[in-house]
Amino acid sequence: MIELTETMNNESVSIFSGIEEMNHEQVVLCHDKKTGLKAIIAIHNTVLGPSMGGTRMWNYASDQDALTDALRLSRGMTLKNSIAGLNIGGGKAVIIGDAKKIKNEALMRRFGKFVHSVAGKYYTAEDVNMTTRDMEYIRMETPYVTGLPEYMGGAGDPSPYTAYGVYMGMKASAKKAYGSDDLHGKKVLVQGTGNVGKHLIEFLTKEGAKVSISDIFEDKIKQITDHFKVDVVDADKVASANMDIYAPCALGGTLNDESLDLLQCDIVAGAANNQLLDEVRHGQALLEKGILYAPDFLINGGGITNVYYEYAGNHSRERVMAQTELIYDTTLNVYDLSQKSGQTPHASAIKIAEERIQSIGNIKLPL
Amino acid sequence: MIELTETMNNESVSIFSGIEEMNHEQVVLCHDKKTGLKAIIAIHNTVLGPSMGGTRMWNYASDQDALTDALRLSRGMTLKNSIAGLNIGGGKAVIIGDAKKIKNEALMRRFGKFVHSVAGKYYTAEDVNMTTRDMEYIRMETPYVTGLPEYMGGAGDPSPYTAYGVYMGMKASAKKAYGSDDLHGKKVLVQGTGNVGKHLIEFLTKEGAKVSISDIFEDKIKQITDHFKVDVVDADKVASANMDIYAPCALGGTLNDESLDLLQCDIVAGAANNQLLDEVRHGQALLEKGILYAPDFLINGGGITNVYYEYAGNHSRERVMAQTELIYDTTLNVYDLSQKSGQTPHASAIKIAEERIQSIGNIKLPL
Repeated sequence: MIELTETMNNESVSIFSGIEEMNHEQVVLCHDKKTGLKAIIAIHNTVLGPSMGGTRMWNYASDQDALTDALRLSRGMTLKNSIAGLNIGGGKAVIIGDAKKIKNEALMRRFGKFVHSVAGKYYTAEDVNMTTRDMEYIRMETPYVTGLPEYMGGAGDPSPYTAYGVYMGMKASAKKAYGSDDLHGKKVLVQGTGNVGKHLIEFLTKEGAKVSISDIFEDKIKQITDHFKVDVVDADKVASANMDIYAPCALGGTLNDESLDLLQCDIVAGAANNQLLDEVRHGQALLEKGILYAPDFLINGGGITNVYYEYAGNHSRERVMAQTELIYDTTLNVYDLSQKSGQTPHASAIKIAEERIQSIGNIKLPL
Repeated sequence: MIELTETMNNESVSIFSGIEEMNHEQVVLCHDKKTGLKAIIAIHNTVLGPSMGGTRMWNYASDQDALTDALRLSRGMTLKNSIAGLNIGGGKAVIIGDAKKIKNEALMRRFGKFVHSVAGKYYTAEDVNMTTRDMEYIRMETPYVTGLPEYMGGAGDPSPYTAYGVYMGMKASAKKAYGSDDLHGKKVLVQGTGNVGKHLIEFLTKEGAKVSISDIFEDKIKQITDHFKVDVVDADKVASANMDIYAPCALGGTLNDESLDLLQCDIVAGAANNQLLDEVRHGQALLEKGILYAPDFLINGGGITNVYYEYAGNHSRERVMAQTELIYDTTLNVYDLSQKSGQTPHASAIKIAEERIQSIGNIKLPL
């Protein structure tokens, strides 16, 4: 009965409710008995181009949780790809299951066949618990994949670019909050030390920030403390930690009623998708607490910019870095728009993203 | 709360539960805000070839009902296409909504775009509340459609072939039950006077059967009584009607606890898909009552045979009629297998269909 009650609260008893609410175009449920694959491909919007977004593998508590995640993440990709100025729409895939237990070549290639079956309406790439090696397996079954290893003509691991964009967004936020974008001496807590967090920690420690980290996996913490001089914060003490800047780089929803009660910092700027559990209410709560929130889908767009140029066929490291660096300016623009309109930075960034889709959508109609 | 309780009984709170239980490959949820389109494409099995099955438009009480219908119908297509000896797999689409109110060119063409987006893994055709004109609209957006009007190179309306196959299955059942396949003087009740029911009534009245009809739509009843000499039975009196042969040609599930309590006849042989509400339990109940049940997915395969030859590119009326006529022999084979094994005719037909998929699946592996 617990699951049913939750389902009711989520208002997702109706299968199409989330799809209608967020206005998705298409959601594909994939199943293969032999490999044990259960996956969802969510295609949110293809006005700007084919939908693109990474594949996340996660051991969801329920199918409904997986669907909700796919719906939210794919909508986030639409906004992210639009505000980054890319000619692609928004999509995302989730594979249901424990990556450590069930991921193998057959599972990845079967998933690749499903990606292929939507015929280029969705291009996949890396996300949580996926690697360039997995992209390689997927590539064996479909060309609709980006983020391939460099030796396969791909743009390689997108994580450093994502980290660089977050770093740019964080510096722009510092500029806004402190009048200077120098992070030297600033206490920054990086929550989640996966591929992106690791690179962000490198940028931050190089600049002389006082970095602390938190992760739910001991082995990942050790990988960081072996290489960088950082403090470690218990996973359940993150919200109450002493910090200037909070960088959520793990899963989404860490900005919620509970954490916002405790959170004391000047800036939130991290790589995680969907950091605001309720984007309206919790965005507003941050505004009222005087905490500057750098919209996640804006500042974590470096990775998708990298794979976008791979997809477009004209990738170079310099080009991606230059375009990712623009996140600094866009972040300041968003804060300006927010200040003028009184809306949250998140709402302001959505406005910019949606206006681009609307205006480009109009020019796509035949003359 | 009623809807929730039903959902619990169907065990479909988990989105993938029906998909896993019936072993579907892929389910596509389609949504378009502008046209108001909400549709589900269910791809059950593509071992024998691309999945094929009609599109049904229906004003479902809930999204869950629509999904359950799509899952059951697409599995039925896998069995139907296999036992008919066609080189295609099983799929089905449902469009959610009242055809009389919302169906128009834009809706049909948007749906065509969704059919196109699965790139030939699913071919659509006509089903309840869809016409060859609708197939024409769908064809404007995708080649993955069969059952086109004849002036577009299509095989035309499949309904007469479906009706002919049902007629063959009914005659084979009469042969088994009465020792002769002559239907002259037999009391046959045709429930549902849509495209298929109409043609079946024509075959039956020509042979001199005593036909009675039932429908929930007054205008459809009038169309029949204007042309044929038939009795009319109230829609709620069907199960208790005086008849030798019951031909369910409306929606599925009419063979259930309630109707089986009342049903007095020798044969059930009709065109509707999924006539047995619970295929195991109600199939067994018919066996125990001594009622001969002609498996629906076997005897209603004439229509899909027609569109299959259109898809295969070598259609002729004679060829389709000849292949549909084989339903007579297959039905007798199913009854023989049923008698030898003690299993229901339905279970026997499933066995034949699944064995074909298994054996052809094996030869599809590379040498």
